[in-house]
Amino acid sequence: MVKTADYSRKSIREVEITRVEGRRSFERADTLAREEPLEIKLAYGPYGQRQSRSLAVTMRTPGQDEELAAGFLFTEGIIGKASDIREMRHVGEALAPEASENILLVELAEELPVDFDKLNRHFYTSSSCGVCGKASIDMVRSTSCYFPRRAFPEISVETLRSLPDKLSQEQTIFECTGGIHAAAAFTPGGELLLMREDVGRHNALDKLIGAALLQGKIPLREQAILLSGRLSFELVQKSVMAGAPILAAVGAPSSLAVELGEDYGMTLVGFLRGQAFNIYCGEERVILA
Amino acid sequence: MVKTADYSRKSIREVEITRVEGRRSFERADTLAREEPLEIKLAYGPYGQRQSRSLAVTMRTPGQDEELAAGFLFTEGIIGKASDIREMRHVGEALAPEASENILLVELAEELPVDFDKLNRHFYTSSSCGVCGKASIDMVRSTSCYFPRRAFPEISVETLRSLPDKLSQEQTIFECTGGIHAAAAFTPGGELLLMREDVGRHNALDKLIGAALLQGKIPLREQAILLSGRLSFELVQKSVMAGAPILAAVGAPSSLAVELGEDYGMTLVGFLRGQAFNIYCGEERVILA
Repeated sequence: MVKTADYSRKSIREVEITRVEGRRSFERADTLAREEPLEIKLAYGPYGQRQSRSLAVTMRTPGQDEELAAGFLFTEGIIGKASDIREMRHVGEALAPEASENILLVELAEELPVDFDKLNRHFYTSSSCGVCGKASIDMVRSTSCYFPRRAFPEISVETLRSLPDKLSQEQTIFECTGGIHAAAAFTPGGELLLMREDVGRHNALDKLIGAALLQGKIPLREQAILLSGRLSFELVQKSVMAGAPILAAVGAPSSLAVELGEDYGMTLVGFLRGQAFNIYCGEERVILA
Repeated sequence: MVKTADYSRKSIREVEITRVEGRRSFERADTLAREEPLEIKLAYGPYGQRQSRSLAVTMRTPGQDEELAAGFLFTEGIIGKASDIREMRHVGEALAPEASENILLVELAEELPVDFDKLNRHFYTSSSCGVCGKASIDMVRSTSCYFPRRAFPEISVETLRSLPDKLSQEQTIFECTGGIHAAAAFTPGGELLLMREDVGRHNALDKLIGAALLQGKIPLREQAILLSGRLSFELVQKSVMAGAPILAAVGAPSSLAVELGEDYGMTLVGFLRGQAFNIYCGEERVILA
């Protein structure tokens, strides 16, 4: 199992900066996390009637584009399993050399029915109660395949506290740039299984879930996911899609993130820093004693 | 001038949590930043042929919806000035009480030509060089009204260092939730003019720019903007649209954020914490001595 991705030079960029420290200032080299647009295109339908369309453009850190696309398609409900994807390849060369790595064509299995309306769940307009938090939560129910199970696993307070340090040790791009989000999957015993980084926190989680999907590890029923930032509704939604029962974050959750987590019986942990943290729901999975 | 918004109870939510500190755990009340979907609808066209359509749904912290919508429409290039908006009102009541504050109808001036293709700049497909960072930067040029001026203002090292503390002092939702982004506009002398908060960092900046637009303060040619998080391409793009020459952030910039800032002659400052910071471009506006 490939734990951390092979972060090549294409994920970072060297620049010259002016550093100011106290009363001194000096020129020095610095490393930035790269950000570039990725267009995800889909080819779908039976042979003879094959169609293609552009699905989305996301600003992402180059690298693991296939995992990002697989995770995005899975958490958006367009695909349900790895074999729904027949092939993925970059197709931008014809346009310009700069664009050659920024268009990814995903060939879907010909028998897969594609419902683009699922993407419109972001518009929530089909909901009977209009646009509101409850409608957003209900909409998750209509797209998920793998809800988190209400019961196990359990995780100890000590294990939870150990996760941020383990994540930092694996974060190769963060180490050199100080500016990138990460998402990681751990066993309930605290072993890091998989970690992905991206300038976008949604992308980091999509890459993690996409990598797990392509490696046949979905649903993540026995795993805890750790996020380097804050917990918004959409990050909890993606974790619900992956069937992950425990979601912890270094930052704070939003109200709707907690409402969604409660509704699906997840364990949500926030402000996981140093010796302290908050449990917002699902405390029965945390061994406190 | 309204410096900070009137943050009512609707921007936060009280919950019961389990707090773990060292070997102790206990129940306590906690405050979360609220997150709810907002649908922005547009009504446009001349009387007699008036049309309406749903433009976007964004997950935001309730409050200042009009500023958020105005800032979003302005930074997306749909409107160019405050008077392009005739009226804004919430229209969700007919659907359900929960939704009453989550649909905002923006009535555009009847003579305003509306080009929805501008929203498609996120797809970059009309670009001659395809999908790449350079195309993303070029696309900004086609939508902006107010580029930052290449020259003044100047800001001192001491003033820059003082900005994060001034921002924290004004952050009412962050103070009680610890989990919300902020964007603020300062004079080059370091006086805080305007500050807005949101669970989404794009929304916080849209609210700030929208508030400035509605108060007749755009372009922000003489101001410095400070962001509580990291600097991505889209945040620099929004600042370019507002004509702001100096953009500082507590976190790290991405590669494309710096490329865009360089291209438009902006001053970009990152890792603004304690006594040190980095200048990525436009150091001629920072008084170092």
